[in-house]
Amino acid sequence: MIKAAIIGGSGYTGAELVRLLANHPEVEITTVTSETYAGKMISDLYPNLIGQVENVFVHFDGKTVANDVDLVFVALPHGQPMDVVPGLLKTGVKVIDLSGDFRLADSKTYLDWYKKEHTAPDLLASAAYGLPELFDKSIVSSRLVANPGCYPTSVILGTAPLLKASLIFAQDIIVDSLTGVSGSGRAASVATHFCFCDENVSTYKAGGVHQHISEMELYMGQAADEEVKISFTPHLASFSRGIYSTIYADLKEDLGPEEILSCLQKFYEKSYFVKVLGEGRLPEVKAVAGSNYCHIGAAVDERCGRVVIVSAIDNLGKGAAGQAIQNMNIMSGLPEETGLQAIGLYP
Amino acid sequence: MIKAAIIGGSGYTGAELVRLLANHPEVEITTVTSETYAGKMISDLYPNLIGQVENVFVHFDGKTVANDVDLVFVALPHGQPMDVVPGLLKTGVKVIDLSGDFRLADSKTYLDWYKKEHTAPDLLASAAYGLPELFDKSIVSSRLVANPGCYPTSVILGTAPLLKASLIFAQDIIVDSLTGVSGSGRAASVATHFCFCDENVSTYKAGGVHQHISEMELYMGQAADEEVKISFTPHLASFSRGIYSTIYADLKEDLGPEEILSCLQKFYEKSYFVKVLGEGRLPEVKAVAGSNYCHIGAAVDERCGRVVIVSAIDNLGKGAAGQAIQNMNIMSGLPEETGLQAIGLYP
Amino acid sequence: MIKAAIIGGSGYTGAELVRLLANHPEVEITTVTSETYAGKMISDLYPNLIGQVENVFVHFDGKTVANDVDLVFVALPHGQPMDVVPGLLKTGVKVIDLSGDFRLADSKTYLDWYKKEHTAPDLLASAAYGLPELFDKSIVSSRLVANPGCYPTSVILGTAPLLKASLIFAQDIIVDSLTGVSGSGRAASVATHFCFCDENVSTYKAGGVHQHISEMELYMGQAADEEVKISFTPHLASFSRGIYSTIYADLKEDLGPEEILSCLQKFYEKSYFVKVLGEGRLPEVKAVAGSNYCHIGAAVDERCGRVVIVSAIDNLGKGAAGQAIQNMNIMSGLPEETGLQAIGLYP
Amino acid sequence: MIKAAIIGGSGYTGAELVRLLANHPEVEITTVTSETYAGKMISDLYPNLIGQVENVFVHFDGKTVANDVDLVFVALPHGQPMDVVPGLLKTGVKVIDLSGDFRLADSKTYLDWYKKEHTAPDLLASAAYGLPELFDKSIVSSRLVANPGCYPTSVILGTAPLLKASLIFAQDIIVDSLTGVSGSGRAASVATHFCFCDENVSTYKAGGVHQHISEMELYMGQAADEEVKISFTPHLASFSRGIYSTIYADLKEDLGPEEILSCLQKFYEKSYFVKVLGEGRLPEVKAVAGSNYCHIGAAVDERCGRVVIVSAIDNLGKGAAGQAIQNMNIMSGLPEETGLQAIGLYP
Repeated sequence: MIKAAIIGGSGYTGAELVRLLANHPEVEITTVTSETYAGKMISDLYPNLIGQVENVFVHFDGKTVANDVDLVFVALPHGQPMDVVPGLLKTGVKVIDLSGDFRLADSKTYLDWYKKEHTAPDLLASAAYGLPELFDKSIVSSRLVANPGCYPTSVILGTAPLLKASLIFAQDIIVDSLTGVSGSGRAASVATHFCFCDENVSTYKAGGVHQHISEMELYMGQAADEEVKISFTPHLASFSRGIYSTIYADLKEDLGPEEILSCLQKFYEKSYFVKVLGEGRLPEVKAVAGSNYCHIGAAVDERCGRVVIVSAIDNLGKGAAGQAIQNMNIMSGLPEETGLQAIGLYP
Repeated sequence: MIKAAIIGGSGYTGAELVRLLANHPEVEITTVTSETYAGKMISDLYPNLIGQVENVFVHFDGKTVANDVDLVFVALPHGQPMDVVPGLLKTGVKVIDLSGDFRLADSKTYLDWYKKEHTAPDLLASAAYGLPELFDKSIVSSRLVANPGCYPTSVILGTAPLLKASLIFAQDIIVDSLTGVSGSGRAASVATHFCFCDENVSTYKAGGVHQHISEMELYMGQAADEEVKISFTPHLASFSRGIYSTIYADLKEDLGPEEILSCLQKFYEKSYFVKVLGEGRLPEVKAVAGSNYCHIGAAVDERCGRVVIVSAIDNLGKGAAGQAIQNMNIMSGLPEETGLQAIGLYP
Repeated sequence: MIKAAIIGGSGYTGAELVRLLANHPEVEITTVTSETYAGKMISDLYPNLIGQVENVFVHFDGKTVANDVDLVFVALPHGQPMDVVPGLLKTGVKVIDLSGDFRLADSKTYLDWYKKEHTAPDLLASAAYGLPELFDKSIVSSRLVANPGCYPTSVILGTAPLLKASLIFAQDIIVDSLTGVSGSGRAASVATHFCFCDENVSTYKAGGVHQHISEMELYMGQAADEEVKISFTPHLASFSRGIYSTIYADLKEDLGPEEILSCLQKFYEKSYFVKVLGEGRLPEVKAVAGSNYCHIGAAVDERCGRVVIVSAIDNLGKGAAGQAIQNMNIMSGLPEETGLQAIGLYP
Repeated sequence: MIKAAIIGGSGYTGAELVRLLANHPEVEITTVTSETYAGKMISDLYPNLIGQVENVFVHFDGKTVANDVDLVFVALPHGQPMDVVPGLLKTGVKVIDLSGDFRLADSKTYLDWYKKEHTAPDLLASAAYGLPELFDKSIVSSRLVANPGCYPTSVILGTAPLLKASLIFAQDIIVDSLTGVSGSGRAASVATHFCFCDENVSTYKAGGVHQHISEMELYMGQAADEEVKISFTPHLASFSRGIYSTIYADLKEDLGPEEILSCLQKFYEKSYFVKVLGEGRLPEVKAVAGSNYCHIGAAVDERCGRVVIVSAIDNLGKGAAGQAIQNMNIMSGLPEETGLQAIGLYP
């Protein structure tokens, strides 16, 4: 049994970790922390856990949280993990951090995009980027995994094979993404009010300012082996779960959908969680909601010499908690799909 | 391994059976029939099953469908199973029928409520009513199980303990229920069009004419050991999955919520799937969507001497396919929860 | 031109007043107050008003707000208007208060249900209850109108004709209502978060404790000319706008739907905003959303000797701002429908 | 009074025409045709019209439909109007056709994109394209107006000023659009089933095959005075009403958002229905739903030298019926906004 602690368990990502780990055959949840809700049961906040999970939130205590624990999931907001993770690593536990704090290559880029001085810059080089379909070898041997962002997961999975195969131009990629409202977190605000999101779609951080751009360009650049440049626009859509990315890229040569799909299919042949759809079929976000799967489809706009790739994941699943558990499985020598085989609800 | 066939697999109930059985550790799906979609892959209709389930729909063939099969799920519309089930039983397989055809006590009541002559009336007496929390002993030994309706499951579970304990009057019960749109089935119609259901709630079969009334009154009557009379109004609500029943009953004596809840808790103490909520807390339908759980809560209107019980299930889960698999588990000597432990999504 | 001020204009009710008055041919909005947003444009909060309404929120100032104003709409939370209204009335303006502060008959009932000492009890007797279909004569001559609550509007309109005609028993009425999320107001909270409300239905203030019970029993009692007793359960549903009430009442004699509907139709024959549906048809909440109409339908459960009435309104329209403007029209000698003729959106 | 007939009144566009015209001060609806529902009341299909519109659907009769009529709205599916319109014009009535049949320049392009031989090619040249913000002069004098498509309305309004001012490259425009489900029409299908659309987003006609591309390229080309090339991807989103287009274009020179917005604002200065949002603000589709307004905002991605324009309309309003009435007003010498001043619902 893996003994796992969750730091920051009251948010949606933390609660999804609890939900998934509660049914994981090889994990015992030792501790779930929350400063706001310490003393309350998790199921007081999340009624789906009533009668399922008896854990009570406790305050974070850096001295004891890692006692008798194998692995810690850090599900704190961006900017907080870099203050906590160094201490955790010193105790010898493995750490999977779900924030953006350890995803970038250096502290300057972090400052540029997250507008904060990084307080643990020396850890950036040693952290593995937890996208198993591309980086499983570095994950398996790592003690600190930076779990990818939800948008980057969908976009990198959708484009990396084509960039590696040099089928598309890397400098001119446009990404138009929809996120479910759970991506905005549990905190109540006007922007997450039902009456704002319902029957609506809105746009935020347009114009190339979303911090995930740096993450996408970094890892897509590694796949392409050249600089990648992305115009990225995120929209808030009227569903709870999901990331749905439509990606436009100029083709280097005259290719049809079959060559594009064949490149993607070959790349993900042995991947458990990525499903490449057949020609003429494009993903729906509902088909992956509640699961750890990623669906990818593609069409070619022959008039314009452009490929249109659509990539769908559950932002809390493959885009956060599910992928974190997939990383834990890999770090622990378990089959990557352990405890993650739930199929999306449809209808 | 249990070898199971599904008759009528293209509807929502059939597809949910496939989704759940695909991850059931002790079941192999041998055959899934559909007259409309024979030759197509199930995953052509249900994209959540892409890469998960390779089954292709076949035409129903009464001679071969039971070959090398242990159990058949019949997921056909009301009125069709009574023509098919007798033949299936003769082959020696066990049958779980998810329609209303074998739930009532006699063919006259069937005619009254379903407006059809029953064609296999002799089977009515031998069919076990598949509500395991009340009737597990007859299920375990039965070869034909009539899987309960979605509304009756929520209402009977919410009231039977109180009727058995004689805490409420049986003649004056009012049930106001909401169903998710998946309860209307996959067939496209104006009534299931997104633009009709979205941001809407409507009412159908009001005035005591819904066929589930007969089923509720029958089994609640068995619990009460006296005649039960219900006013029942079903509403179509703007969510995909769920049955949410608010039940009003007059109290026989001056009881508070703690006595009511204690009666319910005691009754379901050893039940895996029914969770009775603590005082002051009432169910939300989202907390059980995607699961086989039933949440029950209660409040007492002291001014009026009335108890208000709220009972929530997933209509496709505990209200149909999930409960059918629970019955299969019981009929097969497996723990009832096998393959059914998924926790509802929240958010 | 009527010059109107709105006190508390940043909430949903205030914003709906602004939206409706912006197109009212006989009204000029002089002032809209908001303590939180003073200095901001209304259209900064409500993008539908961009380019339509140039008003800027100002702080409330009791000395100047009524200057050069004919009528003030008070759209403050319960408990605040009773501190403001006496001063406003002294300036000579007419007041329509949209809170619960002036709806009840006496300060003791107010204390019982609102858990607050009333600070202007002497005004309770003089306030007219602003439900024009029942009380237009007192409204026309009143200087203070207490605009009805959303639930009471739907329930009183659905039952008053039957109570007046003595067709139903008054002591045993059950009301099961759904509200759209806008009924919870604009303030962000976990209970109004999209991920909580979406695909969900929940229950609050069950067990006879919602403050609107007192209001319903008071005015339904006036219609019945005897004491009325109601079990009332409000649910939060997954739509933005609407109140949808299902009302169960025992019939005094053996009546069919045609007698019930005929009683309702006769009562509302000359009413502009109440539409009684034909036999066999029941309201949908979407059909009235965005309008000031009320749809009422009925079915009879002959087995149980009970009538089921369904009544639907827009909680912000006929349930709040629309009805307030209807009252303003009546108080100002305009046709009651002036500026309120918009038909609900469908789809 | 303008006497107007509606051919094809049972679909969503026809019903929205009826809803809007019912409150139009200068119009009387003489006839509404429907082959499927002839003999039924419109309000039997559209409950929002109960008690508002007494019209009964009649069969289309080419000989009588134009009797005593000034103007005919043709709301038939693509391909049917070209068989009906020539006859209507001969009677002397004015015609506004809401299909794609008269929007393109010639019959060859029509064949290429609509895959049908055009049966009235000689009318193509004389039809005015009914986008008043660009073509009001040809509309005012026209007897046949081709009402624009919903996607083209949003995209042309969002880009034409920038193309005219030559601020963006015309050959490399990418348009990613969301449509509400009402855009798929009233006909029931799996693709419009609530359980398919709810909590979902999907993609159709990807890869440059949607027929609206030809319409956009034609009229944007007229604005640019050079050939325009668009990659266009339409998505089906989980709301009832709205078109939400995100448009990516490469900037010809180094411009900031203020120059872009100033160009747009100047162009629409005198336009009643187009609102250009201030810097830092982008449209929400809900703010225009239920109205005839178009909201346009823009951001600049300086890293990539690209402008991102977001344009939102109601697909049934400005994208169909509302715009058709705006055209009728212009053709009839009325102020364009007559009967169209309703402000979108929010919340």
